[in-house]
Amino acid sequence: MRTEPSTPYLRVDTARLRANVARVAEQAAAAGIALRPHAKTHKCAEVARLQLEAGAVGLTVATVGEAEVFADHGVEDLFIAYPLWLTEDAARRLRDLAGRADLAIGVDSTTSADRAGALLAGAEVAVLVEIDSGQHRSGCPPEEAGGVASAAAAAGLAVRGVFTFPGHAYGPGAGASAAADEARALEAAVASFRAAGLEPDVVSGGSTPSLAASLAAGPGSGGVVTELRPGVYVLGDAQQWELGSMRPADVALVCRTTVVSHAGGRLVLDAGSKALGADRAAWATGWGRLPAYPEARVVQLSEHHAVADLAGAALPSLGTVLDLVPNHVCNAVNLADELWADDTERWSVVARGRNG
Amino acid sequence: MRTEPSTPYLRVDTARLRANVARVAEQAAAAGIALRPHAKTHKCAEVARLQLEAGAVGLTVATVGEAEVFADHGVEDLFIAYPLWLTEDAARRLRDLAGRADLAIGVDSTTSADRAGALLAGAEVAVLVEIDSGQHRSGCPPEEAGGVASAAAAAGLAVRGVFTFPGHAYGPGAGASAAADEARALEAAVASFRAAGLEPDVVSGGSTPSLAASLAAGPGSGGVVTELRPGVYVLGDAQQWELGSMRPADVALVCRTTVVSHAGGRLVLDAGSKALGADRAAWATGWGRLPAYPEARVVQLSEHHAVADLAGAALPSLGTVLDLVPNHVCNAVNLADELWADDTERWSVVARGRNG
Repeated sequence: MRTEPSTPYLRVDTARLRANVARVAEQAAAAGIALRPHAKTHKCAEVARLQLEAGAVGLTVATVGEAEVFADHGVEDLFIAYPLWLTEDAARRLRDLAGRADLAIGVDSTTSADRAGALLAGAEVAVLVEIDSGQHRSGCPPEEAGGVASAAAAAGLAVRGVFTFPGHAYGPGAGASAAADEARALEAAVASFRAAGLEPDVVSGGSTPSLAASLAAGPGSGGVVTELRPGVYVLGDAQQWELGSMRPADVALVCRTTVVSHAGGRLVLDAGSKALGADRAAWATGWGRLPAYPEARVVQLSEHHAVADLAGAALPSLGTVLDLVPNHVCNAVNLADELWADDTERWSVVARGRNG
Repeated sequence: MRTEPSTPYLRVDTARLRANVARVAEQAAAAGIALRPHAKTHKCAEVARLQLEAGAVGLTVATVGEAEVFADHGVEDLFIAYPLWLTEDAARRLRDLAGRADLAIGVDSTTSADRAGALLAGAEVAVLVEIDSGQHRSGCPPEEAGGVASAAAAAGLAVRGVFTFPGHAYGPGAGASAAADEARALEAAVASFRAAGLEPDVVSGGSTPSLAASLAAGPGSGGVVTELRPGVYVLGDAQQWELGSMRPADVALVCRTTVVSHAGGRLVLDAGSKALGADRAAWATGWGRLPAYPEARVVQLSEHHAVADLAGAALPSLGTVLDLVPNHVCNAVNLADELWADDTERWSVVARGRNG
């Protein structure tokens, strides 16, 4: 067994990680908003522990499989923020999980609420109604939230509240307007609940690029949001860097990569889409960023090559090891079996690949 | 342990897989060209075995780690088609591999050739010189191939030949012109070898979208190519479908996914970038294709959601299980710990994540 990492590998700067955990925990506490970080970003028990120790009320996950892994690692409060379509097998797994953790799942239609009620009868699995606040992915319209909640209650489920993901915050300058959309949509959903004679205990939103604006719209300023579920804030990535929602100096995960070629007068690195992920938003300037060369851009990415244009800087020699910040840390982490913490400790990506 | 797959999961149609293996093996044999399939696509011992049984001369891999895994599974002829920058550790691993398989690696500069020679002195590791035939990723200019080969020979390495990857075949209608570039570049490299007093035994090219044209340019028609290294042909994907280099009916891998929502009147599936990969070329029409709805397009992709516009077709009900063809099968496979062969057998993705 080799113990020394060979490039490309993912490295976590634990000082920056701890600082990110602490900063957002403090901001949420100051705003009077509960924090339930999305664990899909890191998929590591070590990072989950830091978040919970800093006051997170529980974790958010995306799949039953992720919930199982974190329950196995002792996490006692889990929200699967996803409009699950339950199979018999999934219901059996949720029943098992409900015996080990405070458990909630998402529903976004009366049909899925009926299904969940039928398959989870008697189990202690709460539901939150997902609404669409502008991303136009999943979630019902805010004004239909009360109807879905009523269907869930009628099907025998404990309705805990409402949630949304303002994913349209992922665009240049879009964080504040997406947070405003989120606030308006959640207000409308709360009104819809109340019109149906229901009161949501949890009103949950959040994403990393909208985080600052969402924190400002908490109960202190009359807002309805009680909980936020950011994920990426804990590690950061080139998307947050380029959106301006995190500083480059806050980015706590890099891919360590080696210069393997100077072909064509450009820098060719041994990190590619199998280490970084292939994510590239329309507004991204390339496939990741090089902290040592802020003006450089990764202009070409294949499975095991990143080709960077250094914008006139002298090429570092072959064999040089450089840090490359992935565009989307959640997908980079999900490619790795382990993360190297400060190049000394190995953290297992325990929920890697748990898609179902 | 669950044995029944929950969606999303990757399913291989083994009849189609076997047909793809056989068809390309026959085409290569008819053209008098050796086939050395790139195993990065499937990363599975079962698929490697089918390819070798059908007459492949060996496998191509991208990393030392992939070579180790396939050597562990009994593959005796491995070419790491990558301009490796050798560390002491990598050299030690290659020496170990050379005792278990016929082994070759790539070099694309006199510097990397010198390095490889110094670190691999006495080991039975051959080298092939990589040239750039138009993709402009790694590889030296064709006319410099002889110089790099001479440096490698002077450094004590056995020079086996020259190789290229015509990756610029990945564009609409680009297959034939990329194959022509490949042929011209390899001819120029052979001339450069000969001017340096060297004769390449192996002249290697190939990609799936250029495959038909490259096969037509073999020795039978006076071409210099002796070997082709396609990868994707064995499973296919939405890129090949949309490029027209494979028929939809040849696609042998799909992601089985469940309809979880009808939010906004669109189809929301539980497969996302963590099951499919985030690949989307500029010319792709979406993030994968639905065989049951050829006119549909996946218009939005996040980690656990694919949102499809069905182009007016009636939405299948919640809970319906559908097949979704990933854009780029190599990256989809690299996300999965196992593939389900015909929903009956589990194939371990043994080289998953072996990036270094």
